Amino acid sequence: MDLLYTLDLIGTFVFAISGLRVAAKKQMDLFGATVIGFVTAVGGGTTRDVLLGSYPVAWVQDLYYPLAIVIAVPFTLIFRKYIVNLRRTFFLFDTIGIALFTISGMQKALDLGVHPALSIVMGMVSAVVGGVIRDTLCNEIPLIFRKEIYATACLAGAIAFFTMSQLGVIPNYNYLITTVIIIVIRVVAIKYNLTMPKMKE
Amino acid sequence: MDLLYTLDLIGTFVFAISGLRVAAKKQMDLFGATVIGFVTAVGGGTTRDVLLGSYPVAWVQDLYYPLAIVIAVPFTLIFRKYIVNLRRTFFLFDTIGIALFTISGMQKALDLGVHPALSIVMGMVSAVVGGVIRDTLCNEIPLIFRKEIYATACLAGAIAFFTMSQLGVIPNYNYLITTVIIIVIRVVAIKYNLTMPKMKE
Amino acid sequence: MDLLYTLDLIGTFVFAISGLRVAAKKQMDLFGATVIGFVTAVGGGTTRDVLLGSYPVAWVQDLYYPLAIVIAVPFTLIFRKYIVNLRRTFFLFDTIGIALFTISGMQKALDLGVHPALSIVMGMVSAVVGGVIRDTLCNEIPLIFRKEIYATACLAGAIAFFTMSQLGVIPNYNYLITTVIIIVIRVVAIKYNLTMPKMKE
Repeated sequence: MDLLYTLDLIGTFVFAISGLRVAAKKQMDLFGATVIGFVTAVGGGTTRDVLLGSYPVAWVQDLYYPLAIVIAVPFTLIFRKYIVNLRRTFFLFDTIGIALFTISGMQKALDLGVHPALSIVMGMVSAVVGGVIRDTLCNEIPLIFRKEIYATACLAGAIAFFTMSQLGVIPNYNYLITTVIIIVIRVVAIKYNLTMPKMKE
Repeated sequence: MDLLYTLDLIGTFVFAISGLRVAAKKQMDLFGATVIGFVTAVGGGTTRDVLLGSYPVAWVQDLYYPLAIVIAVPFTLIFRKYIVNLRRTFFLFDTIGIALFTISGMQKALDLGVHPALSIVMGMVSAVVGGVIRDTLCNEIPLIFRKEIYATACLAGAIAFFTMSQLGVIPNYNYLITTVIIIVIRVVAIKYNLTMPKMKE
Repeated sequence: MDLLYTLDLIGTFVFAISGLRVAAKKQMDLFGATVIGFVTAVGGGTTRDVLLGSYPVAWVQDLYYPLAIVIAVPFTLIFRKYIVNLRRTFFLFDTIGIALFTISGMQKALDLGVHPALSIVMGMVSAVVGGVIRDTLCNEIPLIFRKEIYATACLAGAIAFFTMSQLGVIPNYNYLITTVIIIVIRVVAIKYNLTMPKMKE
């Protein structure tokens, strides 16, 4: 599945940049920031593979994943101002990354014979765990637990993806539609400041 | 071992509620709280299975585990006041959960041929890691490292469980006695404010 | 490889002490401190083994690892003052531990057929993840991400180790030279207050 693989690498690159930016806010040094970029990018997929016992873990045998992360470091340094100014552009990329990881994570679980309901969980694990580790290492309550409609968008996308694949929608169309659904939910949620209801103590 | 399986599901349900309550204190939204409930409930058993390389991880192939957690969400919302008022009841349930996870974790390790001393460690991992992940994600030093006689009760229970199984005590009696031992230690420790000695700097 | 195994056990012992000392600063009780010592000592190697799918994880089948940690507890309590006063001695031991874990982690990955570049990553994972977990559980941004030339020393050592093994240097000499390289880099970095450049926001 070449398209999915390419998209996965793009997702890795974009997630690494998101990790590098959070690390920069925390005054980390270049090495620490690179590590944060690394775990942000591979944390979700690695957790999924370890939970599924699917060895070898993708990036341990495929140099293109680490390479995508290593390239993200000078890219972030050089285009720093540009990235901050184009916050919206990066919000978009980040959301695309989430969508791609949701889809590829879910597909991998389905291919391994995991129950659809649990494959949806695996898709979400792939998409959100990297960011959770990033925030935990930076000593913050993970963003995902606090504000945005983030994982909820993944959940909706994953359910849509599964439904469409059951209905026989061609994979590439399915990827595209799912990605659009996830992006639209996030954009609308942020524009209209939608949040999930809070738990009351 | 049907009894052990049933008790394991009850433990999962009770641990999910404990996660949901901590998340509510942290003002998390409904989704974040559900995730915290999830990792609190499955974190210990998952860590044990991954450490042992025992695949598939229990909840990845058995929908009853996620189901127990999903049911815990409306349950917690509906019986919220009731749960807070009946703090003692829940302390009891939580302690039962710890006891059950200690026993089932240890039994699983023994069944896989792990050395008894390390099986005790695996029983404790099963019982306490979920709570450790919960507190870490909520940006607090895990409770277990600070105050209560908690893991010490697990340790005592695990040693008792192993000793009794060596002495030929019938499993179901052994489960019951071990659970009672763990509960008694915790209740006595809290009633008389017993703590482990602190490390001095 | 008897020498490597012995050095690995010494590394485990020294890392456990480092965990116990951080836990003591956080006013943890004896049990919590022991757990922190445990995860500090085995966290790196366990993460490496899980990532590589290399089962059984070393300490789950070999009682000498837990034993090295258990012995570290009374050792730390008894020699507490001595350890604090001899801060330099322990800095040295800690650095030796890092060097040993870098080498043994990298060698294990190479033996499993992992690409050299990724084996270097695995060597670093083995050396630094224990400390990262320790600091995260103690609710601090991991030290490694903030100040010292620490992982950079591992990285340099790992590259040197691989280069020398390619050049046919006898393993035992290679271990020794690599360890010396890592120690010298750390000592020089601290003496002259060298740090990696910080990321700018």
